[in-house]
Amino acid sequence: MTYRVDLNSDIGESFGAYKLGMDEEIVKHISSANIACGFHAGDPLVMDKTVRFCKENNVAVGAHPGFPDLLGFGRRNLDASFDEIRAYVIYQIGAMKAFADSHGLSLQHVKAHGALYNMAAVDEKVALAIAEAIKAVDSNLICVGMAGTAMEKAAKELGLRFACEVFADRNINPDGTLVSRKHPNAMIHDEELACKRVLKMIKEGCVEAVDGTLVQVKVDTICVHGDNPKAVEFARKLKTVLEENGVQIVPMASFL
Amino acid sequence: MTYRVDLNSDIGESFGAYKLGMDEEIVKHISSANIACGFHAGDPLVMDKTVRFCKENNVAVGAHPGFPDLLGFGRRNLDASFDEIRAYVIYQIGAMKAFADSHGLSLQHVKAHGALYNMAAVDEKVALAIAEAIKAVDSNLICVGMAGTAMEKAAKELGLRFACEVFADRNINPDGTLVSRKHPNAMIHDEELACKRVLKMIKEGCVEAVDGTLVQVKVDTICVHGDNPKAVEFARKLKTVLEENGVQIVPMASFL
Amino acid sequence: MTYRVDLNSDIGESFGAYKLGMDEEIVKHISSANIACGFHAGDPLVMDKTVRFCKENNVAVGAHPGFPDLLGFGRRNLDASFDEIRAYVIYQIGAMKAFADSHGLSLQHVKAHGALYNMAAVDEKVALAIAEAIKAVDSNLICVGMAGTAMEKAAKELGLRFACEVFADRNINPDGTLVSRKHPNAMIHDEELACKRVLKMIKEGCVEAVDGTLVQVKVDTICVHGDNPKAVEFARKLKTVLEENGVQIVPMASFL
Amino acid sequence: MTYRVDLNSDIGESFGAYKLGMDEEIVKHISSANIACGFHAGDPLVMDKTVRFCKENNVAVGAHPGFPDLLGFGRRNLDASFDEIRAYVIYQIGAMKAFADSHGLSLQHVKAHGALYNMAAVDEKVALAIAEAIKAVDSNLICVGMAGTAMEKAAKELGLRFACEVFADRNINPDGTLVSRKHPNAMIHDEELACKRVLKMIKEGCVEAVDGTLVQVKVDTICVHGDNPKAVEFARKLKTVLEENGVQIVPMASFL
Repeated sequence: MTYRVDLNSDIGESFGAYKLGMDEEIVKHISSANIACGFHAGDPLVMDKTVRFCKENNVAVGAHPGFPDLLGFGRRNLDASFDEIRAYVIYQIGAMKAFADSHGLSLQHVKAHGALYNMAAVDEKVALAIAEAIKAVDSNLICVGMAGTAMEKAAKELGLRFACEVFADRNINPDGTLVSRKHPNAMIHDEELACKRVLKMIKEGCVEAVDGTLVQVKVDTICVHGDNPKAVEFARKLKTVLEENGVQIVPMASFL
Repeated sequence: MTYRVDLNSDIGESFGAYKLGMDEEIVKHISSANIACGFHAGDPLVMDKTVRFCKENNVAVGAHPGFPDLLGFGRRNLDASFDEIRAYVIYQIGAMKAFADSHGLSLQHVKAHGALYNMAAVDEKVALAIAEAIKAVDSNLICVGMAGTAMEKAAKELGLRFACEVFADRNINPDGTLVSRKHPNAMIHDEELACKRVLKMIKEGCVEAVDGTLVQVKVDTICVHGDNPKAVEFARKLKTVLEENGVQIVPMASFL
Repeated sequence: MTYRVDLNSDIGESFGAYKLGMDEEIVKHISSANIACGFHAGDPLVMDKTVRFCKENNVAVGAHPGFPDLLGFGRRNLDASFDEIRAYVIYQIGAMKAFADSHGLSLQHVKAHGALYNMAAVDEKVALAIAEAIKAVDSNLICVGMAGTAMEKAAKELGLRFACEVFADRNINPDGTLVSRKHPNAMIHDEELACKRVLKMIKEGCVEAVDGTLVQVKVDTICVHGDNPKAVEFARKLKTVLEENGVQIVPMASFL
Repeated sequence: MTYRVDLNSDIGESFGAYKLGMDEEIVKHISSANIACGFHAGDPLVMDKTVRFCKENNVAVGAHPGFPDLLGFGRRNLDASFDEIRAYVIYQIGAMKAFADSHGLSLQHVKAHGALYNMAAVDEKVALAIAEAIKAVDSNLICVGMAGTAMEKAAKELGLRFACEVFADRNINPDGTLVSRKHPNAMIHDEELACKRVLKMIKEGCVEAVDGTLVQVKVDTICVHGDNPKAVEFARKLKTVLEENGVQIVPMASFL
């Protein structure tokens, strides 16, 4: 049997004179990129360059819309209305799509950033605003989010393709949600273990929760980070382990 | 013989709590709208609403990109590079296009705003950056500018359709350029005269310059304003005069 | 016996090409102005002009800091940290103070805007961040807020002078809080009644709540609006009624 | 004879999640800091932290105002009016001063940033707007700029103290201006030579121009950079060389 999975990372987060992330390195190890769209990070010039080297590295491009909060890097909850969020997401997808078009690429997916991502997981209004925005621009775009969230529900209600995302370095609760970063065991620091867990999710569709119970997990795309050398090295390692175990790393659009 | 011309106006310039322009009034009298894209004016919610009532009023929609200078309303020259301007314009066209798409409309044209428009008229680098941006997103988009400018030259070099724009309320020099606003006779305050001049441009392809000489003028689209009741009333009057004289007011895409 | 009260209004909310509020009119009827500081509204040029005509009209000037959310006019809750809010407020007070200094005026007070004001009423962290910011810049500045709120508590804990603010056009609950705008009787539309209620608060220190019970109310400053002709006319009327009934309208610093 | 000079560096240029510069390192080697004020770089939280460790390192603090162009890092000429520039500078000085006040420090100086600095060197309108802004906030603030420029002229006309700044790593023309960065010999890469030249300027009041002629140079403060390890190491070295040769490194306010 052939296993396929997508590896995604948030890139294109530089802004003007400010450089953030090791984009040139991480793109070598991923199959899909979530590119910042200028609201919480990124700027037009950065978006153009980021799409260019995604193309050069055969990485599928997606929009990574966030709240209009550069100062807070899109990580702060903002009490925006349904119409505002819907419009913010349409705007950012459109801007990103133009750069994809200009490089002859199709925009593959949309993944909300930071506070918008977190709010969309639990707030039906926010989730629906994002899903409507995606559908309004291009109903063929894949919506990325965590399984079992309001985001998944909204995407499916509107008939959008949905990619279930997991985080390679995070422990989960018995109900499938992430262990809060406030808890000491939120993160998985053992890289070997993290790789094994991901492999199990892919091949067996399940993984151990923090309490030891086995939890069913569907995984279409795995989020890895590229903001420091250690993270990039882990991404490289994860990719190698997966491929050595018969898992193909391919853009989500190829199997969703 | 049938005469056709387009009437355009800059709209969608409100921002958040700030309302600017009599958009609901002026759209009744124009055939094409240049909609601000969030850099010098406009915001995602305003863009969405503006496209919606353009659709309701059968007005063709265009992107109206400007410099990233909300504080200066895009009216201040900014020493941006070729790559920056190109990326700014791609970004803004993309954002605007997404709203057009979401309402089932095709984006018709692109017209630079304020300082960007003025710089593009005389600076080949700026003009080419805009033209390349338009072509990169969608080579079918019409570029709007003044005849005889660097903008026209750049658009035509790249094979773009170009719409020659005239200003109903401005006097021109013998070389076809606008009389500077610093001169007392820059503006034509007599509305009857302004209408007659426009009619002459359309039917005879020429008009009197400030020194009385007859200047050849090609007119595809006429810019009218909607920021005050008098301007809206003039737009209504101009439309009436043109139609009474056998000129059809239609979106530029229908004849370019 | 002499009664004294301050009348305040939020002004200086224009931004660039965007004009908001009838500042030139409302300053004729108030004793203190809360001037936007460029985060949720206002810009440096507007601040300069606003301070100038406050001076010309003998109106005391105060800083009106808000969240960095021009797009939402500072009306949207933002999940900012204590340190962020403290720094935002220091920054805005400082900017405002520089314009006051440049016109030879002393900055009199600080009143948070919109979502920041509302959050400071109920959230001790937000209130303390604002109070600390005020004290850090100039411990002589008066903090303005509603009586009985977290803002009052924080200001007093830090030893700041506190001005109790009431809203002339709002009904209150038996516990002294404002009736929510979601309720039909949130607003007092009868201007005569509104004036009488304010007079009673000033002279008798109490007013009827929505359920008819008499509630004790301390009033140092009354908030009036200047964003439309009706509001300005009401401010003029309120001032007249108060003065005809022996109440002096004076800046809060003269009696706090 | 005792020689005294100031060493200054631009710091506090981080923004939100974006870190720029080795501020913690460079402050150990300088006597004055030019701190970004949130327009071209910096944010309220960064300003607060930067002032704090300037205080801890006995470094005098100054405001480093720039154009409102975070996207361009304040390096792009903007065609702003006299009133706009004056208001932008008042605003930024005020914000910076509030953080200095909050830490019990006096703001020492003002040095324009990037495009604003360069424009002020040659454009009398820009220079005067800056000088007026400084005087309007606090006439005791020192204005920093290059000798012989419009900035010096404007500062002196308004009676401000002026600090003559030189750049340790730049060659100069016979007329005292900097050799353009477009020329191959704009920079002095030999650190030994750079130190010797600075020492000569301080002790002899002159230095060799690119053509070998000896040019008179007045130096109050020397600009060093802290954006990379090599620059920080050079600053450390320059400080050591100067001190070993009997030059005291002290804040400019101590001798101007």
